[in-house]
Formats: sequence, structure tokens, C-alpha cells
Amino acid sequence: MVTNSSKTQLENLPIDELSEGLSRQYSKQLTERDVILFAATSGDVNPVHLDATYAATTTFGEPIGHGMWTGALVSAAIATTLPGPGSIYRGQSLQFKKPVKIGDTITVTLTVESIRARVALVTLKCEAHNQHNVLVATGTAEVIAPKQKQRLHIKPLPLITLEEV
Amino acid sequence: MVTNSSKTQLENLPIDELSEGLSRQYSKQLTERDVILFAATSGDVNPVHLDATYAATTTFGEPIGHGMWTGALVSAAIATTLPGPGSIYRGQSLQFKKPVKIGDTITVTLTVESIRARVALVTLKCEAHNQHNVLVATGTAEVIAPKQKQRLHIKPLPLITLEEV
Repeated sequence: MVTNSSKTQLENLPIDELSEGLSRQYSKQLTERDVILFAATSGDVNPVHLDATYAATTTFGEPIGHGMWTGALVSAAIATTLPGPGSIYRGQSLQFKKPVKIGDTITVTLTVESIRARVALVTLKCEAHNQHNVLVATGTAEVIAPKQKQRLHIKPLPLITLEEV
Repeated sequence: MVTNSSKTQLENLPIDELSEGLSRQYSKQLTERDVILFAATSGDVNPVHLDATYAATTTFGEPIGHGMWTGALVSAAIATTLPGPGSIYRGQSLQFKKPVKIGDTITVTLTVESIRARVALVTLKCEAHNQHNVLVATGTAEVIAPKQKQRLHIKPLPLITLEEV
């Protein structure tokens, strides 16, 4: 099941619905707008992401997404799909394998690796692939899974407009 | 040295300027706007971050920042200060210790733990504290440090405007 950010409702998978091998996917395309919003929220204004003239002089040849934008997608997948709302994010490892370019569509696949039922601690294998099925990042997440089923309405985000200065 | 996102120029620390124990800091306040921009760029619209009425029903009692926003600050610190532009981000581990609330100012401290000079692979200890000096996240980063000194002009970001829908 592939989900994305256009959903209007979120439903979680509480601890008693989880089992080893259970998997969920979450996809999002990286737009130039996403790169600008990530730069604004984090303060990471490194020109390799934002300045095509500079990026052309680097080994990448063109602007690339922030590595941690892919990390943000992994966290979004956890927070919205597996286990979803009510999870407590304990830890994340990430290895960045390949650059993500503007226009790439990244699919995060989460798979339950282990469950320590007594403390509801779930270990998830995390893989991010681009539209050519190239692995761009991999890692492991640790979350405390929610105990209760939840179905939540998503409040619409404010309208965000960008204007060149 | 504390740096933030209002800089207009970035200067890196190439491999020959790095030594074990060298440290840099990077600070940013989490605003409601940052939370909205992070939700938009990642698609993580979990209402614990965005809906005060829902957040009041959770153990947090109020909206909290996305855990990976702190991860984004760690990556911003690496990309803009130590080693800065020209670095290649290889990997990151993060343990989330405490929630970050809207209005908190988070300071990321990076410290060089080890250097493998032959391959320019640098391991950085990463710690994020809030304004009360409470550790909110900790972890380790692996980066390939740049070989050349760089001083780069930062292109101003577009003006971002939010409008309630």
C-alpha cells in the first residue's frame, strides 16, 4: 500500500496489529519547492541544494535534495503509516547511498524487523528507493508503538506561497 | 561559535583544518511556521504537530516539533559549519530523548570524534540541547570532508508566505 501526503485521514497500526515482516510504503516527489521549504525550516542553505550555477561546478552537476529530506520522508512514513499516530520515535539510523535529484520520486519501504511486546518497542527496516528502483538511503528505526487504535482527521496545512526576492 | 541561518556566506573546514575534539555549534528556534514547512516538505501531517486541540489529548499536552526536524538541524549544522560546503553526508544515527516544543531554541553541538585521513572520513558526535540545556537528541554522523577550502555566497531564499485555508 502506497500512501502520500494528500490523505485527509490517518489510521494507525497499534501494537496488537503488528507482526514481523509487515510492510508499508510511502512515496513523495521531491520538488524545487520542497527543497526551499526544507532549507527554510532547517536553515540548511548550502548552495549545492539551491543554486544551480554553483551545483553545476560540483560532482553532482545539478542541485540535489538535502540528504536529511529523505530522512524526513522516513519519519513521515513512520508517523503516518507504520505504526502511525500515537507512535513515539526513539531512534533512527540512516546511510545515504545516492543523491536525490529534483523531480525524483522517493518511495520509503518500512518493514517490521522485531517486536519487544512487553515495552511495545518495534524495530523497522527502512529503505528509500527512487523511481528507477535505485536504493538512495537505508537504515533502522526504533519506535514505541501505540496501544490504542486511532483514526484522526488531518487539519489542512496553510496555503504556502513562494516569491522570488 | 554559534551560527544560524541568517548568514550570507558559508566557509568550510577542509580535511587539513580538522582535528579530534574540534567543535562547532548551530542554533535555531522552532517556530510554528517551521513546523508547518517541515510538514509540507515531508508530508508528515501527524496532528500531534499541527493541531493544538488534538495535541492537548496526548501525553505531550501541546503541539511538538517533528523529531526529524531536530535531525534536519543536525544536518544543517554539518552542511553549513563542520565541515560545511563540499562535505558528503554518509550516515547519521539519532536518538530522540525529549520532545521539542514550539518556541524552543535548539543548539546542535558537533564534535570531531575521529578522522580517517586517507579517505577523509570524519566521525562527528552530535548533541542537541534546548534553551534549558536539556539534551533532546544525540547521535553520530559520518561525513567525507572536503579537500579544498571554500567560501560561498548564499543565495537568498524566496519569500515564503503562509495563509490559513
